[in-house]
Amino acid sequence: MEILPPALERLINNLSALPGIGSKTATRLALHILRGQQGAAVELADSLSKLHESIQLCSSCFAFSETDPCSICSDPGRNSEILCVVEQPADLLAIETTKSFKGHYHILHGTLSPVDGIGPDEIKIRELVHRSNNGVVKEVLIATSSTVPGEATASYLIDTLKNPGLRVTRLAYGIPMGMDIKYADKHTLARAILRRDKAV
Amino acid sequence: MEILPPALERLINNLSALPGIGSKTATRLALHILRGQQGAAVELADSLSKLHESIQLCSSCFAFSETDPCSICSDPGRNSEILCVVEQPADLLAIETTKSFKGHYHILHGTLSPVDGIGPDEIKIRELVHRSNNGVVKEVLIATSSTVPGEATASYLIDTLKNPGLRVTRLAYGIPMGMDIKYADKHTLARAILRRDKAV
Repeated sequence: MEILPPALERLINNLSALPGIGSKTATRLALHILRGQQGAAVELADSLSKLHESIQLCSSCFAFSETDPCSICSDPGRNSEILCVVEQPADLLAIETTKSFKGHYHILHGTLSPVDGIGPDEIKIRELVHRSNNGVVKEVLIATSSTVPGEATASYLIDTLKNPGLRVTRLAYGIPMGMDIKYADKHTLARAILRRDKAV
Repeated sequence: MEILPPALERLINNLSALPGIGSKTATRLALHILRGQQGAAVELADSLSKLHESIQLCSSCFAFSETDPCSICSDPGRNSEILCVVEQPADLLAIETTKSFKGHYHILHGTLSPVDGIGPDEIKIRELVHRSNNGVVKEVLIATSSTVPGEATASYLIDTLKNPGLRVTRLAYGIPMGMDIKYADKHTLARAILRRDKAV
């Protein structure tokens, strides 16, 4: 016998498909939505159904945007001589919240992963090489994650972008701000010692 | 300047309104949905927008259902002589998964909370009194939560349902199955000692 009304079960199944949402959380969310106002459910539904049709990839940096070029690429106040290369749109958001970067971005939409069949042509590397040779770009700041695939992608980019007219840089690695030295992992600490900065 | 496309920001705001979903989780979910297929987003949207129109409250037990009476109330295989009183639809689901209860339910849709202005008329207590006097019901099993409002509601129900022809019972409290005695909280342990069961 069915305990759950099919319409509720359908919503629970759809919510469970989201990352980090198990069946218990999905059930809790679905019951919350059902107990709430129909207007709120319809508003959420509408924002979901309009998402893909409103948003495209910027043809220059491949950020999600409602316009092409995106608001960052078309902002005359930003420095088009430096490109920050990130794996995913969420990385761009993280960097933007620091307000410490005023250049342009380039979103790879993934990392190299030969075992999964993801080579340079599957992510936006060819487009990056093309952009970095456009005569405007002087520096490429590689901001891939400090993970195995992120590092492998960074190494590949450093080789591929090698060009006397182009400065290729990476994010600094070291002790996180506010962290007690004794809690830092040994790899981070070793790197922080090796790449120590001048104190003044 | 807007970093996020408005359509994405709208979805993030709507997701953040759900319980237990903060802005970081909402952003992660929204970006996951955007990276995924449009079909999946539209399916989730459709299941949300159809939810309220497909589901109503059973006029007998007040469970969410697509039919009235619900599948439990209309199941001839279930015992209509015993009513299990729960606070919320999620409690009914939790009890159904145990497959240990074959009676009918009564969902209060809340607990008494005089400070919030929630008295007996704001939750389905009058309907419960009416049902328990229908000549069929012989036992009311009170399964409200073991919280302050749950206990207060249970006490009120015990007083209100007092009737020589009606057996009023409560869920047993004690040590959770599989729990090490030394980790049980003292209130649970005290109650388990006081209400000890015969061993054989």
